[in-house]
Amino acid sequence: MIGASLLTDQYELTMAASYHKHGMNGTATFDLFVRELPPNRNFLVAAGIEHAIDHLQSLSFEPDDIDYLSSLDLFDEDFLGFLGELRFTGEVWAMPEGEIYFGGEPLLSVTAPLIEAQVVETYLLNATTFPSSIASKSARLQIAARGRSFVDFSLRRDHGPGAGLLAARAAYIGGADATSNVLAGKRYGLPLTGTMAHSYVMSFDSEIEAFRTFARDFPTRAVLLIDTYDVEEGARRAAMVAEELRSEGVRLAGVRIDSGDLAVLTTAVRKILDESGCGDVPIFLSGDLDEYRIAELVDEGIPADAFGVGTQLGTSADAPALGGVYKLVADEHGPKMKTSTGKVSRPGRKQIFRCEENRYVEDILALAGEAPRNGRPLLHKVMENGTRTRAAESLDTMRDRCREGIARLPAHLRSLESSRAPYPVTLSTALAELTKEAATRTHG
Amino acid sequence: MIGASLLTDQYELTMAASYHKHGMNGTATFDLFVRELPPNRNFLVAAGIEHAIDHLQSLSFEPDDIDYLSSLDLFDEDFLGFLGELRFTGEVWAMPEGEIYFGGEPLLSVTAPLIEAQVVETYLLNATTFPSSIASKSARLQIAARGRSFVDFSLRRDHGPGAGLLAARAAYIGGADATSNVLAGKRYGLPLTGTMAHSYVMSFDSEIEAFRTFARDFPTRAVLLIDTYDVEEGARRAAMVAEELRSEGVRLAGVRIDSGDLAVLTTAVRKILDESGCGDVPIFLSGDLDEYRIAELVDEGIPADAFGVGTQLGTSADAPALGGVYKLVADEHGPKMKTSTGKVSRPGRKQIFRCEENRYVEDILALAGEAPRNGRPLLHKVMENGTRTRAAESLDTMRDRCREGIARLPAHLRSLESSRAPYPVTLSTALAELTKEAATRTHG
Repeated sequence: MIGASLLTDQYELTMAASYHKHGMNGTATFDLFVRELPPNRNFLVAAGIEHAIDHLQSLSFEPDDIDYLSSLDLFDEDFLGFLGELRFTGEVWAMPEGEIYFGGEPLLSVTAPLIEAQVVETYLLNATTFPSSIASKSARLQIAARGRSFVDFSLRRDHGPGAGLLAARAAYIGGADATSNVLAGKRYGLPLTGTMAHSYVMSFDSEIEAFRTFARDFPTRAVLLIDTYDVEEGARRAAMVAEELRSEGVRLAGVRIDSGDLAVLTTAVRKILDESGCGDVPIFLSGDLDEYRIAELVDEGIPADAFGVGTQLGTSADAPALGGVYKLVADEHGPKMKTSTGKVSRPGRKQIFRCEENRYVEDILALAGEAPRNGRPLLHKVMENGTRTRAAESLDTMRDRCREGIARLPAHLRSLESSRAPYPVTLSTALAELTKEAATRTHG
Repeated sequence: MIGASLLTDQYELTMAASYHKHGMNGTATFDLFVRELPPNRNFLVAAGIEHAIDHLQSLSFEPDDIDYLSSLDLFDEDFLGFLGELRFTGEVWAMPEGEIYFGGEPLLSVTAPLIEAQVVETYLLNATTFPSSIASKSARLQIAARGRSFVDFSLRRDHGPGAGLLAARAAYIGGADATSNVLAGKRYGLPLTGTMAHSYVMSFDSEIEAFRTFARDFPTRAVLLIDTYDVEEGARRAAMVAEELRSEGVRLAGVRIDSGDLAVLTTAVRKILDESGCGDVPIFLSGDLDEYRIAELVDEGIPADAFGVGTQLGTSADAPALGGVYKLVADEHGPKMKTSTGKVSRPGRKQIFRCEENRYVEDILALAGEAPRNGRPLLHKVMENGTRTRAAESLDTMRDRCREGIARLPAHLRSLESSRAPYPVTLSTALAELTKEAATRTHG
């Protein structure tokens, strides 16, 4: 985002000014992590990392940023001059996008001169927590849909234009098959999808005329919206149009139901379609769907083939924010930890090791440099000296990683409700000892 | 937003292509409104209108947009040529930002050739519903804080960078006094605010050294965060620093508590400060606050002076999306309405009249052109022939409008829970008759 270096909390800059004034710019390490999983979540899906790296790589306060900061009457010339030259020169370790992760596990570990590491806090949290929420929500929809297709229809309800783009991308990583968001399709190469609106149907003298016109205009892609007037009548009319298409060798792409009692209507529509020789025409459902409702419909054996999910996917409405934090875990004097009420941060630079058999068994939160007997390291070096050291992956690679991760989760963690037996994340002996030692050393 | 014309659902463009092919481009009117208020809401606050107007004014599919659309193999050359030339030429009526509104009342009314009006649907919904959610949430915080200050700390938890900017702007309209978001301050001229982070305190050998350093660096602005270690100890150390500042004629700007039992701690801290001669040092609270918690604290008489609100404000977490819709209400053949299950749209171009005495009494939803005996019209013409006809207002004008609107709401509607007696929105006789008539005419 252009000029995004100023997209930070004011206190990041006042603290930076203070550090600068007092020559406090030694190397520091910050961990970005989520303390606790949101309600009903047994896992999260990493996303937004690439945008975080882009931000670090392009960090630069432009002359008009400096002019604005100068106008605030908070900063002296010396600091503003320093800020104008500031670039990110640090080292970053990160989880790849699409990776499953759990509470307390760093998504990002940033080691850099204190001021650089501090001024990017707000942006890094912003860039990673929202996409993680949406990729996680999408993964839950993938679990609920049990192999049926689902797509992102959220743009109109997302938190502004930018959120619409980020949501479409994260939804795809989490398993959505396509998005209705055309700009997201263009920007990220996502598959696009779409049907028709009620207003289209209403713009014709009759429903059948609307269906026939759209089917002729988009013979292989037309999904007819059949609930503008009466759903069952709509299904019969769609079947007539399907028959007309069939005579030209084309299969109607589908019908969509967007309102009413979806379970009852889908069953009735399936029967109408089947009895009209349209057994191959899929039924597409939408209308305030979420993973809970989709799981119900799928569990009841409702003959729906695909789902369009809007608000609930694009805003993660039942858990619209992740409590991500960015904590100082080491500085030039060594490991650090905070011990305020109920909020512990584990000290030191870290690595996470995932122990796997067929399924994920356990994660070990360890110190960087430890080499446990087994376990795959989840954090990879993505930047060194402020430069990317790992090429950006394709979204399909991220999406495949997420799909495999879900398949390898212990079965009880694929529940849509919180499991009483959360995934085990244990501390390595070295990290446990350092935590104990740091707690003793911590003072006021 | 650059290239934002493609920020639309694919079906807007397929429908547009179909309309174009069949010469269906007569004048149509769409109403953008929220059918029902979200849980616990008795009113909403209009916001995002200026960005909606900007979008209409700059609507233009650029050559690379057209190239992308061409690659989808959905559209013919004729339509793509047409789309490349398309500009918005219509007329728009809108509520000013900051205005209080209710369910069923159009925020925007768009009258334009059908295709122009159709392709902007998704963006207009996106641009207006999220800011309305946040301005409404902010207005609820204003009610809860009863004259105390509250500020926006949401950036790190907002739905991406763009959402952070929009949230800061809407929060200000709804009554927030400032934001921590520096880029929002620059872009919108919002007052900025900020304190310090736990990591700052931890970067010094002792808490008192951190406090002293920050207070010297920002003598008139330093708000000291006192909960990194022990809150009461922190308060005593802040009092010492306040005394040092006082000897130089400067008042410490405040202390902040961000965790723990805020009611108990605030009372204890107030006592410590008062007994140390710091009766004039305000206490600033933060940490998972929302309007319910703030109302509790204020009602209990807790001596807090100001509140920082993050996640709950920037994501409207208890109602993270507004069910905004954009419905065809008239076309070249006259008024239109949709009658699908449970979803009625009132036909015809409309105006809303607000009847006021000291307080708001009733809104009358009427047909455009009606002249009721009393009532202030809420919709103003903002565009004609695709051009702005009303200058953008300042954010302070919008904010004042919101503040006055809240003051004039019937007292029971300032409740944070849903009132059993919602604000009365009644149909004018002419609109009621047209609705009845259109229902009879509507067919499948």
